[in-house]
Formats: sequence, C-alpha cells, structure tokens
Amino acid sequence: MQLGMVGLGRMGANLVRRLIRDGHECVVYDVNADAIKALEAEGATGARTLAEFAEALRPPRAAWIMVPAGLTGETVAKVAELFTPGDIIIDGGNSYYRDDIHRAKELAGRGLHYVDVGTSGGVFGLERGFCLMIGGETDVVAGLEPLFETIAPGVGDVPRTPGRTGEPTQPEKGYLHCGPAGAGHFVKMVHNGIEYGMMAAFAEGLAILDKANIGHEIAEHNAETTPLANPEYYQYDLDTAAISEVWRRGSVVASWLLDLTATALVEDPELTEFSGRVSDSGEGRWTVLAAVDEGVPAHVLTASLYERFSSRGEGLFADKLLSAMRKQFGGHAEQHKS
Amino acid sequence: MQLGMVGLGRMGANLVRRLIRDGHECVVYDVNADAIKALEAEGATGARTLAEFAEALRPPRAAWIMVPAGLTGETVAKVAELFTPGDIIIDGGNSYYRDDIHRAKELAGRGLHYVDVGTSGGVFGLERGFCLMIGGETDVVAGLEPLFETIAPGVGDVPRTPGRTGEPTQPEKGYLHCGPAGAGHFVKMVHNGIEYGMMAAFAEGLAILDKANIGHEIAEHNAETTPLANPEYYQYDLDTAAISEVWRRGSVVASWLLDLTATALVEDPELTEFSGRVSDSGEGRWTVLAAVDEGVPAHVLTASLYERFSSRGEGLFADKLLSAMRKQFGGHAEQHKS
Amino acid sequence: MQLGMVGLGRMGANLVRRLIRDGHECVVYDVNADAIKALEAEGATGARTLAEFAEALRPPRAAWIMVPAGLTGETVAKVAELFTPGDIIIDGGNSYYRDDIHRAKELAGRGLHYVDVGTSGGVFGLERGFCLMIGGETDVVAGLEPLFETIAPGVGDVPRTPGRTGEPTQPEKGYLHCGPAGAGHFVKMVHNGIEYGMMAAFAEGLAILDKANIGHEIAEHNAETTPLANPEYYQYDLDTAAISEVWRRGSVVASWLLDLTATALVEDPELTEFSGRVSDSGEGRWTVLAAVDEGVPAHVLTASLYERFSSRGEGLFADKLLSAMRKQFGGHAEQHKS
Amino acid sequence: MQLGMVGLGRMGANLVRRLIRDGHECVVYDVNADAIKALEAEGATGARTLAEFAEALRPPRAAWIMVPAGLTGETVAKVAELFTPGDIIIDGGNSYYRDDIHRAKELAGRGLHYVDVGTSGGVFGLERGFCLMIGGETDVVAGLEPLFETIAPGVGDVPRTPGRTGEPTQPEKGYLHCGPAGAGHFVKMVHNGIEYGMMAAFAEGLAILDKANIGHEIAEHNAETTPLANPEYYQYDLDTAAISEVWRRGSVVASWLLDLTATALVEDPELTEFSGRVSDSGEGRWTVLAAVDEGVPAHVLTASLYERFSSRGEGLFADKLLSAMRKQFGGHAEQHKS
Repeated sequence: MQLGMVGLGRMGANLVRRLIRDGHECVVYDVNADAIKALEAEGATGARTLAEFAEALRPPRAAWIMVPAGLTGETVAKVAELFTPGDIIIDGGNSYYRDDIHRAKELAGRGLHYVDVGTSGGVFGLERGFCLMIGGETDVVAGLEPLFETIAPGVGDVPRTPGRTGEPTQPEKGYLHCGPAGAGHFVKMVHNGIEYGMMAAFAEGLAILDKANIGHEIAEHNAETTPLANPEYYQYDLDTAAISEVWRRGSVVASWLLDLTATALVEDPELTEFSGRVSDSGEGRWTVLAAVDEGVPAHVLTASLYERFSSRGEGLFADKLLSAMRKQFGGHAEQHKS
Repeated sequence: MQLGMVGLGRMGANLVRRLIRDGHECVVYDVNADAIKALEAEGATGARTLAEFAEALRPPRAAWIMVPAGLTGETVAKVAELFTPGDIIIDGGNSYYRDDIHRAKELAGRGLHYVDVGTSGGVFGLERGFCLMIGGETDVVAGLEPLFETIAPGVGDVPRTPGRTGEPTQPEKGYLHCGPAGAGHFVKMVHNGIEYGMMAAFAEGLAILDKANIGHEIAEHNAETTPLANPEYYQYDLDTAAISEVWRRGSVVASWLLDLTATALVEDPELTEFSGRVSDSGEGRWTVLAAVDEGVPAHVLTASLYERFSSRGEGLFADKLLSAMRKQFGGHAEQHKS
Repeated sequence: MQLGMVGLGRMGANLVRRLIRDGHECVVYDVNADAIKALEAEGATGARTLAEFAEALRPPRAAWIMVPAGLTGETVAKVAELFTPGDIIIDGGNSYYRDDIHRAKELAGRGLHYVDVGTSGGVFGLERGFCLMIGGETDVVAGLEPLFETIAPGVGDVPRTPGRTGEPTQPEKGYLHCGPAGAGHFVKMVHNGIEYGMMAAFAEGLAILDKANIGHEIAEHNAETTPLANPEYYQYDLDTAAISEVWRRGSVVASWLLDLTATALVEDPELTEFSGRVSDSGEGRWTVLAAVDEGVPAHVLTASLYERFSSRGEGLFADKLLSAMRKQFGGHAEQHKS
Repeated sequence: MQLGMVGLGRMGANLVRRLIRDGHECVVYDVNADAIKALEAEGATGARTLAEFAEALRPPRAAWIMVPAGLTGETVAKVAELFTPGDIIIDGGNSYYRDDIHRAKELAGRGLHYVDVGTSGGVFGLERGFCLMIGGETDVVAGLEPLFETIAPGVGDVPRTPGRTGEPTQPEKGYLHCGPAGAGHFVKMVHNGIEYGMMAAFAEGLAILDKANIGHEIAEHNAETTPLANPEYYQYDLDTAAISEVWRRGSVVASWLLDLTATALVEDPELTEFSGRVSDSGEGRWTVLAAVDEGVPAHVLTASLYERFSSRGEGLFADKLLSAMRKQFGGHAEQHKS
C-alpha cells in the first residue's frame, strides 16, 4: 500500500527502505533535499514540498511523521493543513503520550485520524525489523496493518512462547495495537524506562566486577574512606569482556543489551572512548512521572534515571552541601583526590 | 572423561545427563537411593556410600559437589577425607566465594585441588546447557575443560560478537575460567545481582503499565492519597501479556527474562497463583556487600534486593513508625484499606 | 490589622487564635456554622455567608483561604467574585505551586492580588507558631508582614546562627518572602519532600535496631531466605524508645521529628496501634516531579515516597511478577509465610 | 572518680576537660607529648608512657581509649598487657561492633572488662555534652555512671518527652546502657546511618531549590537532555541560606543538622569552598551490611551512602559502560559538556 514519510533521518529512511523492499509505495519528504534524492534512487517518490507531498498521496492519505521530538508538533500541524477528512497522520517519533491525546482530539475535530507508533530497534532495525507499539482508533490501525507487518520483525526465529497456539497474533509478529490515542507511546515510554533499569543493572554489576581487585591497592589511611577490612577477598583481576561474553550463552541475564555490552567491551575493554556523561531522553523521565502519578513504587527505574543525572554532575550542589555539613559538625576538611 | 557427582537433585542429575549423553563416564552418589537408581538406569555408575564413590573414581579423581548451600561445607570435608593428593573437588553450588577461598587454602594444605563453578541455567539447562563461571588453579581448570565443554551450551546459534575472530574462545563456548579460587562464584554472585536488577526493571515497568487505567477509578477524597490531577491521562487498559510478547521481537529489552515473563503472563495474566512474597538467595545480598566494600554505587541492584525484603513484610516496623510520626505531628489517623 | 479567614478547621482556627491573641481583628467564615460560633466566642467576627464576609472586610481586603486542597480553587474563585480591585487573596493551604502561578495571573487580570503561603507546624503550631514560606508581589507581601509576624514563631529561644548579626531578618522570625507567585508553595513542597526523607531515615534506622536480635531465631532452612551467616552478631534486644530518647541530647540526629519519635515510642513501644499503611500527600510527589524536571538526582526523597507506596500494597503486581519469573526459570514455588 | 584517657585528640581532650571541670581525676596519655602537656596545664595528670599510665591509675583501673579507628585494636592490646584482673578498658572510638564482641571475649578470658561507647557530639561536644551509647556488662557499666553523667549533656533544656514521668532516666540524661558488648557501637553505627540519610534529605531538597531557576536558561536542543517542557514553572531564584534559616523555627524539619546547614550557607552561600567529594566512614557502610543481614529494606540509608560514593567518582566505570551501550544500540555519540 502507499505511505508518505516526512523526515528521512536514519530511522525514517530505514523505515522507507523496509517498505520499498517489501513492495509498498513510498512518497518521501525532508527539509534536506539530498535525503530525498537518496531514497528516490532506491525507488521512493520524492516530494520537494509538503504540498507536493500531499498531492502525491492518494486519499485517504497516510503520512508517517518521523522528525525530532521538538519538531513533531509543528510538522503534524503543517501536514494536517494540507490533508482532507479521512486522511491519517502517524507519529512514529518519541512524543510524550499526552501530546498524542491532545493532537488526536484536535485532528478528530477536523475529520483527520491520528495514530501514534512507538518504534524500537535503533540502528539494527533495518535488518532486524522494528518493534512497533501502536495507539489509535481500532479500524484506522487495522487498515494500516500491511505497513506494520512489513516494518515489524515478523515471527522470525524467536521461539514461540509456550501456551500460545494457532495463527501468530499481532505481538508475535512484532507489532501491537495497544489502545486508543497515546497508548503506543505510553507503552514505548515504559519500554525505555525498563531499558534504563536493565542497562543500569549491567553497568553496576560489571562495575563491581571491575573493582574486584581493589584489595591489591595499598590502603591509604585517611578519613575519606574506611580502609577495606578484608583486602584478601578483593584480589580478582576479572576480564569483563570475557564475562559479558560467557553470559550470552545459557545464563539468566542473556539479552540483547548484554550482546551489545559484550561488543562494546571487545571493542574497547577500558572504555577509554567515553567520559561517562550519560544522556537521558524524555521517556525515562516520563516513566518516573507516571509511576508517581499512579502511586507505583519504581525504585529501580528511578534510580537508573538519577544515576544518569549524577553522571553529568547534577548532584554537585548536594555533594558540596554534604561536605559543608560534615565540616560544620565534625570539623572535617574535605578530602581531595590524591 | 570420568567425573563423580555428589548430589543428584535437579541440577546435579541434569549435569550427569548432559555428561553421559556426550560420552563421559559418571559415578554418582546421593543420600537418596532412588535418585541414584534413576541415573543408573540412564547409564551412570551408582555408589551407595561416599567410600564406594571414592573407590569407583580413578585417581586423580574429580568430584563435583552439587548439594544445597548449607551442606556444601560438610560434604566437601567428607569427600576430602576419602581423597588422596592430586584429587580435585569441584563445588558447583551457590557457595559464598569467601568460603571457596578458605576451602581452597585448607585443601591445598592436604594436596587436594579445589575448583568453584558458578552454574546458571535453571530448569532449562539440560537442553540449553549451563553457563559456567569457574575459579581455581589454571592447570587444574584446564584439565577439566572436556567436562566444561560438554556441560556448557557451546557456540550454538548465538550470533558471534562483532570484533571476535578466529577459533571460538572459552566464553564463546559458554564457560570461562575467571580467576583463582572463588572467582567463579564471585562472578556468579554478581550475575545474580544483575538478574535481580533486570527482573525488578521488568516488574516495575509492567506494574506501571498494569495501572495505566487508574484514571477510571472514581477519585476518593481522602487524606491518604492525593487525588490524581489528570485522570484523563490514565485511561488505558493494557494487555501486559501481549506487550511482553511484542517486545520479544526487535526491541531493546529483548531478553531471556522477557521470554519467561511473556510465558508467565500467557499462563496466568492476572498472576492469581502468586501472593507476591518474593524470596531472595544469598547472591543478591552478597553482591550488595561487595558493592559496599568496594565503594561502588549500586542503587539499582540494592533497590531490587530491598524490594524483595519489602514484599515479605520486612518493612513493617518502619512503616508503622512512619504512621506513628504522622500522627504525632499532624494528628493524622492512619487510613485503612476501604 | 484586619484579616478574613475562610476555612476554620484545625489549622484555620489556630491561625485566627494566634492573630486575635496578638490584637489583630479577624472576620471568619466556614461552611460549618458551629466553627464560626466557636471563634466568635473567642473574639472573632463571624460571617454567615461569603457575601457577608466580603462586606465585613474593609478595602483593601485581605482574605486567607484555609480549606482542603481539593476545594481551594473554587473557594478562591468565589471570594474573587466578591472582591474589588486592590484586594488580596492568600492561599495558606497545600496547593500545587503551579496552580498558584495560574491563579495569580488570572486574578491580576481583575486587579486582585494573590499570595501563597506554605504553612508548617501541624498540631503544635498554635503554641510554637507556624513556619511561613510566602510567594507573591513584593509590596503586597510587605503589607501583610504584621500578620506574618504574629503567626510565625518569632525569634524565640532558637540560638542565633553564627554569622548572622544586626536586626533579626525575616527568616529569623520564622517567615520568609521566597519569591513571586508560587514560590511559597514551592519551598513548602520541598520542605515536605525533605520531611519524608528524614522520616524514612529514622524509620529505617530504628527498624534495623528493632531487628538486631534476629540471631536469636532458629534459622529455618528454606529457599526463601539465606540463613544468617553470623547469628552471634545479632543478639541485641534494643529498647528503641530509650534509644530515640538518648539521641535527643547531644547527638547529630537531634531534631523535632526525633522528639516526636521518642514520644510515639514511649506511648506505644510496639506500635500496636498502627498497621503500617503510610499515607502521602501531594507535596512528596510534586517534589519528585520537580527533581525529574530539573534533572537533580533525588534518590533519598524519591525512595522515601516509594516506601509509602509499598506500605499500602502498591508494589503487589510487581512482586507477583517477580515470583512468577522465579517460578519460570528456577521452578521455585513461592514460599508462604509460616 | 578516676579515669585514664589514652588518645588526646580533639575528642579525647574535650572528654578530659568535661571530666576535670566536673571534679573527676584524669590520668592522660598520648603519643604526642604536647597534647599531654596541654591537659596537664588544665589539671590532668600526665603519663609519659603507657606503663606510667597504668601505674598512675588505682585498681580497679578504668582506661578510656580514644584513638583513630585503625589503631584501637593494638592500643587496647597494649593497655590490656599492663592491666590486672578487674580493670576496665573503654573503647570510645568508632569501632565496628563485631570487633567489640571479639575483644570483650578475649579480655574476659584474662579477667578484664570491656566497655564500648559510641560517642556523638562532634566539635560541639565540649559545651553541649556528648551523647553516649554504651555496651558492656551491666554492673561494670553501672560502676562507670558517674563518668557518663559528666560527659553526657544531662537533662538540660530539652523539653521532657510527654509520657515520661518521675526521676529522669539514663537516656534523658544523655547516655544509655544499650546492651552487652558491642551494643553501644551498634547503636552508634545506626545513628550515623540515620545521620547520612538526614543529611542527604537536606542536600537533595536544597539542590532542588537551588535549581528552581532552571527555566531561565535557554533550552539547548541536543540529544543529551530533553528540553524542559514547562520552563515557566522554574523561574525562582531562591535564597537557600534564608530558607534553611526560616525552617529552623516551627517547621517539621527543624533539627541540629538544619542549624548547621543554615550556618554553612550563611558563611558561604555558593559553597565555593567545597568540591563535592564527600567522605564516608565505616558506620554508614556497616549500617547497610546490617540491613542486608537482617533483611530490612533500607533504601534511604543505602542511597545516601551510594551518593557519597558517586560524589567521589566511583560510578565512573558504570557510567562509561552506559554511554558505550547507548552508542551500540542507538549510534548515540556521548555528549560533552559545553
């Protein structure tokens, strides 16, 4: 079937590639003319303006918006201007699900349909397929299934979950209509929250392994840290690259994130390339806000977010204040790194 | 090669089965005679006493101890009594790595070798193979590699980590000599610590999804909880079984624990079988002790352990005290469940 | 000076009492006629309707709204209807500071002034005075200072902070103009967030003391918990009431919350009156939302909020899921309380 | 009564001063001769060697050891060599309570008594008195009460806890015999654990106040952080020195730590003197170990310890690994500080 794609960055372009390869027809637009040309060369129909884009699509039109989060709102608005009742706008970016709810309501007032798609897969999506979490009206989403089937990984070689029988259902093919407007991005948001927690679990655990040789160090007698009571128990020089590799087979923590960790540690065992400033995107934060609103304890997901804040020095004021209090009550001067 | 197995519970028996299938010779002993008989029927050589067990093994003997953690110490001691210099005792259970260090030293004084093996794989290990994390003397561990190769999953169909070339190394075959005595259980300990963190990440995230319909409830106006400011944003009835299924394909959180979660939620979407009392074994606790000793921040791994404590009501005194303080300063009576 | 008070619950009534005692003139209104009568008996001027209330106040009027958080918005609106340009509405309740910002802007459009006052002091405020955190226009707040001076504790017998000299400043008298609209409730919000963290610190610590005798128990050998490795170190039967008392003098943790804890533990050392369901109000949650928005790591404040969620059983779905996963990979049946 | 003091650092010297002032007789020893001379000038009896020290004490001798934690063991041993059955050794330092248990048992075998005293008070103890948490044999501790009465703050002007009547009990006078050997340091250990939690609560909360003006900043559009959705809600330039001052009167968070915070912020509102490397001593760590052993959830106390680890860069390996994973799955380059 036909789909329009607005935004031909890495994600948008790869979605178009998967669609074209599978016989779908794509009309593509981007502010960058070169990005359009590149996909024209691969079989897409390029549009030089959004008006041309809307023109090239057959009603009822379907346009997938894949632009940076900060630009989604205005892009949806511009496309909506050019569309006519019955047309569909799909937001495949990382929008806050509350914005979906607002946009869907506004567009509905103009006879337009809105579908939100949380898309996971990263740089591997072109080959692996993208995991799709979808929100919107039931019949509208149903009409788009041929596209979702193509973009998603499909059943693939993932072993079937025991207890599931019959024809493969949506989620077994890698996409899922989760609920009304916003449901797709809500589920994607929590997905990323979980991702933060899993990443932190690996990072903390491997850090404990990395320092298992701390007993080698000659204990400094200073007030900053208690000398290690039993240095004889911390004499291991462990190979974190090999350990993350061995866990890939047969262990309980086997996972795609572990695969990536093993790759990263083979490439650069000392991680010298990195300074340790860890970014966070909106989803991790929104997940915490949802946990607080719902009254669900989420110690792990929240701690993993805060660790990222700390990695960027955001705990500095608090840390200084702790040193200041220690000086006040104990006369402790702050220890400096030797 | 020949191996003796002491302890024929599920894990021990399955290890023997993998070894026999692959042509190794197993001498087996257990306090339960039926367990011995069962494995004799599958080709093992049964021993009715530990003395008979030691007799049936050819020096240099190798005995794998696979008994409950609380019995490992005495079992190792008994076997050591019957062994002669050059023999090897392997502890495949869930020992604290510090006990390994002590045992290895003690046995070394008597000319015996000690190898500790952290074994992951659970009920699936018989078919999947067991991930083995090994500590001990280099040449002793090297001599046992034929056994480890058989027990471990092998290269299998796990895609090779980019950057690894040449003959598959130990960890690519699913086992790893991690370091001297205790290193195997140290790595296994942290593995389980990570496992706790990952499990908690999924549990918290899915709990947030499960309560995404909290806006349906009529807000009670009481002092216990603030009324939800925006109930319109929490109107989703999400299908956690389908969501955990869709994440299995192409998403960042794809993992064996997710596979198991998907299975559990298909079997019992409301989890009615469970009361929510979550056990913890020693490894999760020891991981936290190591983090504290090493001075490594481990918010996530620790929080996942504490959540298990809380699930068993261990936070009750603290909770009561909070209610008592609230009553003191605010005159707040404790709210009861309606 | 003259002040109108709408809402004569415990807090509102005690504010009026402090004002009257100090020679101010109070016009009072409440939906409950008895509450009005009670304060008339103490020297206040009662108003039977809001119209009568507005009538009884001399322009420029000043009305302090002290009603439950859920009713503040509509009460402010009703009073504003009756007020005339130049009049002042003070919200002394537990409003979300963002609502203050909206209300102040809306009222400003009608020539009215809005002041938000975070009020701390609980049931002891009548005698101790109330700590006041104030937001609003500088000159408007300045005009109300005679009231704030009366309501606040004043310099009292709190030792002067070293480094402060000259005439006592606002905060040394127990009230502070923190900034523009919402600043008062913002500061009060964080105050309560800190309060949660301090309360949790005491509750957790005393819980550790309370279980210092766990080594007495005969260790059960089950899979739920690891047997305590060193029961000889946990043989203390500690008196938490006496301990919280001794800390009141000369220790680093001396604090008003400790005073209250000591009182609660003398009254009921086993805390038998309480079931451990701990309520939370909006401030603790909003503090976490602010931390996330600002990107400030707030592990402690957030954990103290989540512990309250857990105390009310809100972690149940997650806990069940953990048990379900454990069953899947390890065949572990859930342990039940013996 | 007579007391010997070994160790005349700030704490030891101030204890001697309080004792002398109150009419007790003190024999003092230190490796630093000047420290001895200084106290001789204030009325103490100086001893130039430990032998001279033991000589100058009348049996049954009582010696208080107040030396750095790392030296306590050997000092106790040396003093014990010179003492005779019936004599008492008091450890007033920051020992691990498990060491107390071992020392008490060993000394008991030689007829000596051991008393452990957790001492809180910091640089203010000389004037305020020291809060004493005491472990040891009942009659031995009872015999030392005249000393404890002098060292402790006494009833002072702290209001009596409602519900307490009759003669002031031990804890109301600022000292408490908590239980057998080690109980004093166990209670002191948890005291410090709570102290960490309270300090963190203030530090985090004030950090949130400090960044309440984050909406002023022009949002950078980068991938590191989500742009603040509502900058209009974060426009407050708050005076943290004034806020910590106002909370000292009438608020729920009034506490000695708040007094110190207020002082620190008056002295140096920007905390420019500090770099934010926060030390930790053994007690905070041991508190977490006890929580884990006892199975008590202690999210807050543990998080406050880990925040100190993070402040010293101990999270770096984990942070680098997170950046490495992000690069692997998303192609995200690490953002650098602009």
